[in-house]
Amino acid sequence: MRRRRVCVVVTARPSYARIRSALRAIAAHDGLELQLLVAASALLSRYGDTLDVMRADGFEPAARVYMVVEGETPLTSAKTTGLGMVELATQFDNLQPDVVVTIADRYETLATAAAASYMNLPVAHVQGGEVTGSIDEKVRHAVTKLSNLHFVSTELSRERVIRMGEEPDTVHVTGCPSIDLAADVARAGAEGFDPFARYGGVGPAFDRAGGYLVVLQHPVTTEHEEARAQVEETLAAVHASGLPAFWFWPNVDAGSDGTSKGIRIFRERHPECRIHFYRNMAPDDFVRLALGSRCVVGNSSFGIRESALLGLPVVNIGSRQQGRERAANVADVAHDRAAIGAAIARQAAVGRYPGDPLYGRGDAGERIAALLATAPLQVEKRLAY
Amino acid sequence: MRRRRVCVVVTARPSYARIRSALRAIAAHDGLELQLLVAASALLSRYGDTLDVMRADGFEPAARVYMVVEGETPLTSAKTTGLGMVELATQFDNLQPDVVVTIADRYETLATAAAASYMNLPVAHVQGGEVTGSIDEKVRHAVTKLSNLHFVSTELSRERVIRMGEEPDTVHVTGCPSIDLAADVARAGAEGFDPFARYGGVGPAFDRAGGYLVVLQHPVTTEHEEARAQVEETLAAVHASGLPAFWFWPNVDAGSDGTSKGIRIFRERHPECRIHFYRNMAPDDFVRLALGSRCVVGNSSFGIRESALLGLPVVNIGSRQQGRERAANVADVAHDRAAIGAAIARQAAVGRYPGDPLYGRGDAGERIAALLATAPLQVEKRLAY
Amino acid sequence: MRRRRVCVVVTARPSYARIRSALRAIAAHDGLELQLLVAASALLSRYGDTLDVMRADGFEPAARVYMVVEGETPLTSAKTTGLGMVELATQFDNLQPDVVVTIADRYETLATAAAASYMNLPVAHVQGGEVTGSIDEKVRHAVTKLSNLHFVSTELSRERVIRMGEEPDTVHVTGCPSIDLAADVARAGAEGFDPFARYGGVGPAFDRAGGYLVVLQHPVTTEHEEARAQVEETLAAVHASGLPAFWFWPNVDAGSDGTSKGIRIFRERHPECRIHFYRNMAPDDFVRLALGSRCVVGNSSFGIRESALLGLPVVNIGSRQQGRERAANVADVAHDRAAIGAAIARQAAVGRYPGDPLYGRGDAGERIAALLATAPLQVEKRLAY
Amino acid sequence: MRRRRVCVVVTARPSYARIRSALRAIAAHDGLELQLLVAASALLSRYGDTLDVMRADGFEPAARVYMVVEGETPLTSAKTTGLGMVELATQFDNLQPDVVVTIADRYETLATAAAASYMNLPVAHVQGGEVTGSIDEKVRHAVTKLSNLHFVSTELSRERVIRMGEEPDTVHVTGCPSIDLAADVARAGAEGFDPFARYGGVGPAFDRAGGYLVVLQHPVTTEHEEARAQVEETLAAVHASGLPAFWFWPNVDAGSDGTSKGIRIFRERHPECRIHFYRNMAPDDFVRLALGSRCVVGNSSFGIRESALLGLPVVNIGSRQQGRERAANVADVAHDRAAIGAAIARQAAVGRYPGDPLYGRGDAGERIAALLATAPLQVEKRLAY
Repeated sequence: MRRRRVCVVVTARPSYARIRSALRAIAAHDGLELQLLVAASALLSRYGDTLDVMRADGFEPAARVYMVVEGETPLTSAKTTGLGMVELATQFDNLQPDVVVTIADRYETLATAAAASYMNLPVAHVQGGEVTGSIDEKVRHAVTKLSNLHFVSTELSRERVIRMGEEPDTVHVTGCPSIDLAADVARAGAEGFDPFARYGGVGPAFDRAGGYLVVLQHPVTTEHEEARAQVEETLAAVHASGLPAFWFWPNVDAGSDGTSKGIRIFRERHPECRIHFYRNMAPDDFVRLALGSRCVVGNSSFGIRESALLGLPVVNIGSRQQGRERAANVADVAHDRAAIGAAIARQAAVGRYPGDPLYGRGDAGERIAALLATAPLQVEKRLAY
Repeated sequence: MRRRRVCVVVTARPSYARIRSALRAIAAHDGLELQLLVAASALLSRYGDTLDVMRADGFEPAARVYMVVEGETPLTSAKTTGLGMVELATQFDNLQPDVVVTIADRYETLATAAAASYMNLPVAHVQGGEVTGSIDEKVRHAVTKLSNLHFVSTELSRERVIRMGEEPDTVHVTGCPSIDLAADVARAGAEGFDPFARYGGVGPAFDRAGGYLVVLQHPVTTEHEEARAQVEETLAAVHASGLPAFWFWPNVDAGSDGTSKGIRIFRERHPECRIHFYRNMAPDDFVRLALGSRCVVGNSSFGIRESALLGLPVVNIGSRQQGRERAANVADVAHDRAAIGAAIARQAAVGRYPGDPLYGRGDAGERIAALLATAPLQVEKRLAY
Repeated sequence: MRRRRVCVVVTARPSYARIRSALRAIAAHDGLELQLLVAASALLSRYGDTLDVMRADGFEPAARVYMVVEGETPLTSAKTTGLGMVELATQFDNLQPDVVVTIADRYETLATAAAASYMNLPVAHVQGGEVTGSIDEKVRHAVTKLSNLHFVSTELSRERVIRMGEEPDTVHVTGCPSIDLAADVARAGAEGFDPFARYGGVGPAFDRAGGYLVVLQHPVTTEHEEARAQVEETLAAVHASGLPAFWFWPNVDAGSDGTSKGIRIFRERHPECRIHFYRNMAPDDFVRLALGSRCVVGNSSFGIRESALLGLPVVNIGSRQQGRERAANVADVAHDRAAIGAAIARQAAVGRYPGDPLYGRGDAGERIAALLATAPLQVEKRLAY
Repeated sequence: MRRRRVCVVVTARPSYARIRSALRAIAAHDGLELQLLVAASALLSRYGDTLDVMRADGFEPAARVYMVVEGETPLTSAKTTGLGMVELATQFDNLQPDVVVTIADRYETLATAAAASYMNLPVAHVQGGEVTGSIDEKVRHAVTKLSNLHFVSTELSRERVIRMGEEPDTVHVTGCPSIDLAADVARAGAEGFDPFARYGGVGPAFDRAGGYLVVLQHPVTTEHEEARAQVEETLAAVHASGLPAFWFWPNVDAGSDGTSKGIRIFRERHPECRIHFYRNMAPDDFVRLALGSRCVVGNSSFGIRESALLGLPVVNIGSRQQGRERAANVADVAHDRAAIGAAIARQAAVGRYPGDPLYGRGDAGERIAALLATAPLQVEKRLAY
């Protein structure tokens, strides 16, 4: 029997981290042929040369699509989505996949799902049914309605996807594949990892023995004009915490110019600050870095998802992760330097929380590959009520 | 107080018929400013010069967007959607509307809703919550998830939209604005309307006194390769019915080349056939034509929606209207010339059914305009469960 | 040594006829690998399913690009060119050709040349240096300035390309490859070819023994609003000539809707007219048809180029071929039914003119392939003065 | 008489500097209406927020078009050009200009000229006929062939444009409008201008009394992979010169990521270096800065054009300005730190050269406006031989 061709569209650094274990499992599966389509900011060096990371991991793209319309405004997000649809359609026509996999809630996720749907290709969606409250949530649920197979992270997400009218047989709780990597790294331990030796980055080196913070803060699409003011609160709080920090540049998105500008100006004004900046890091090294930290700060999904199973103390800032299920390890605060500072102090004193399998146990990639190999593939669907 | 700017995107002949009464009511409303954006097949002469019809009705577009990538395959549908997103985004940036109105379930409907969503514009969707079972249904529900205001046709549709997780306060049963026109025309009566005198068309004239059929058959996206075979069954049945017929060319969509080819070849082979072909007709004249007919044949939504209130006998063919609520006036048959012929014979003998307000009472346009003027407009939303 | 990869972009029915012998010679050449990219109207059934013809000739495309934005106005021509550039760039990135071949003066020709130029790929242009006076001429010379190798049809064209500043070493008089096919067919003879039996077409059959006309009339881009009036003059003259005719539908271009409409309405008004209409014909059969005719009428380049070597009497109408070199077989007339009618009468009485090798002797394809295999390929160039 | 609508498309920081005096003269002319279309990198903050500069100068855009496809590779240059054509066509359709003005030799210049040509709009080209030898030269001459009016900078350029086949009546030596601004500033003098006080920038302040350099180095499209190595040579030479320097970030183009990376890493490794970096500066302030310098270094056209009339010593590096006419003030060197260093030393000792009106006398803007108001506007053209 012919192997099923599975086209996975990876469009950003965090999406790759999220799907890597599934890519591995698909590539290794006898019944599947992986067609890796790398697009959008995953091809751009200012967002971390994700393609290089992927190649170092042994993945070679079947096609590449440059599709980011520069500007990082809501207008250019819309145009990027449109240009992506035009080009992804041509690629799907060339690749003739049996099923297209799309990830989470980015605008390219919608471009992927819509292009595939119009071409009568079955769509499998990873991470449906989660609630976040921004434009991302609109997109996530729209993608659910365009999709035929749903690989969700939690039981609650499954319930939501079914309530939206999807057939229960098509909705599978696989856990989130981003957890798989974290689980692997945690099992192996992070001893001997030296981020300064391994990665360049910008800013001073410091002694990690006294503890450190890891910070990721992305702009929120619907608050993109406040991106700079928001990052300035976090910068002030981290600077005042007395702990040194590793800080990561934001994703490409409406507002990321503001976030970047805030960081640049802070650096110029505070050359004494013990913050070391990275554009990117191999996903497993990032987990190693986080495992060695006292606390993860910002608004990244890592704080909500991977950190649950790892038991890491987290200070989650602002609205970006609003509405997501969370375990006991997360402290939520507003964009306020005093509140952020107090939460960092409390969480940095905790040590570790017990691990919680809320978002998966570390076998999501394997489960997704197995389902892609065996689940019925069909395009037609109908509201289940 | 500044009037709310309402941008309505009209992309096809049937969409215009569907929204015209709402356009009138928006243009006439003191609190609203209509921004009419005409795009896609509504600009193309081979789909009936819809823009000319709109201008004759007194509507002038604020912008025009050519966006149809020629080919009428699933691939070009996807590309058209993408190109539409790129261009509509630029237009929304110029027009700066307060709310964007998108209609039904076409691919341009999704392009409109997605472009507006990414630009943080509130989206109002007309005709959500209906069930049809093809790619159109995927799109319709995806648009629901991108939209902030829902103007649905039936109580059952409202219930479905709410079950998909929309806030009940944002879901309004307005009835379908396409019914408004039909109700107006039915009230006024169709006496004196002569389709031959008023419209050119192609094919022989005939005596309408003995009764006639009206036929509309569109290709089904997911069955686009069978479009020609399907139309041939209908042609054979209509030809054999003994009744003359008025026949309308199909919408632009995957498969319409096949439908057109089937019609062209039939015409060449049966020059004696009493079928008169039209590309298009003013919507009110179409209602007049249908009111004078013995039976409406094909798979158009007119047979399901307007015909309910009008009580017209309908022979509905194939899967295109599957899953839609219908009144007692509809007889469903497969793409089979014998079955179609038998159903035509039965329905042509009925006369008229009692009118059923299933899809509205004729005041949907007014209700939509009133809601657009007063409903809270917001972009943010969250699954209601 | 690795074979040179030659990417030939074919975008229209007449371009294919023009380049076929070169495609054959490239495919057969030991030092070359043919990458055939089929795009634009060559993929569309309403312009004759050129791809099917190509496949029947043994050519399989390396990639297909749907890129025609529907509308056939100057606006959509510009948008088609732009969309083509976007998509062709992605294809060149996939195919990694050593040289890109672009043909004549269509808008897709410019899209091809510009995309390749920006990607630092050498461009070879077929049919540079000819003078026609419309937008086509602007484009043709702009393509010359973007190109690195020039395969021109005539000595005068070579002189013009050099005067425009191109290095003489890069400008080669190969003759026009469209002549190759005509020369082959003329050698073999057209006996036994029955256009009615071989091709469907629309309109009455007639006796060819008394002689017949062959008509091709395309809209002129800069006169696109007059397309319908212009074709009506020709229709009237042909109808009045007393000779039956074979008539071909126009290319996709601004104005072709007008031309088509003119033809459709004439057909309806004159059902008695002895004109048989074709959408398309295999290029060799077209030559056979022309060889059997009394006169070729219209504004096609066939009348100027192939007809020179074949010695066919030609009535060339209007400005479309203005400025092109022509042999003694061509009579030029304006868009005036009387003038057209008189010229048809004179030319139909001639029989045959002596053949003139003005546009080539029938070996252009072989010469082009040989040059592509051996000519230095470079991107950089500089005005030769 | 209706004023002629002149649509000027400005797509980059240097293009704006180049055309500003013409914009002023067009806006002030009684017979003209300025339609300013701002697009591409002129809208992007990482290339200097050109739109803000324009607004500060009193210009408000009639339309904005985001069109840069991110990536800065030859592939994305091609895609940007294509996307630009699609969108500019729609804008021209909205604005209905009488003539479109396009500037120099950028890829957006070709997009502008091609879109306008296909829409049957007359095209006026500023800076045709110059010789540079890279992809820019291909584009410049292709734009000449698409254009109907030519406003050239030098007598030699005029001769070249005519030799390329343009009608002599349509080719006007106006001088280069970029010279106008420089002439104005030189007349007024640069006293009292303090770049540190007026502009932020990055890097140390220094005493300007001992003299300083001004450096602009852009990547060369056809050498884009060497961009980083090339800028490192210049950085080393400037650092070793003993003179402090003001350094400007590069244009958006294939290779600018490499140039930027080279600069960033140099800054990190040489925190002691007396180089102050700017993203941008108002064009008149840039002239003031250059007037106060000992020498202008790099490969900007400023060194060739404006500097001629100003008599500034220039060290011109590499191939970017190859083939351009130059006055006695320019010393040409290769990408070699020793050669660059020696040339800086020699030129910094000169003081000032006599001014040379090679590229104009400072009245180009006025002359261009006058010609746009009075020259015959036509689309049709034909090779003049």
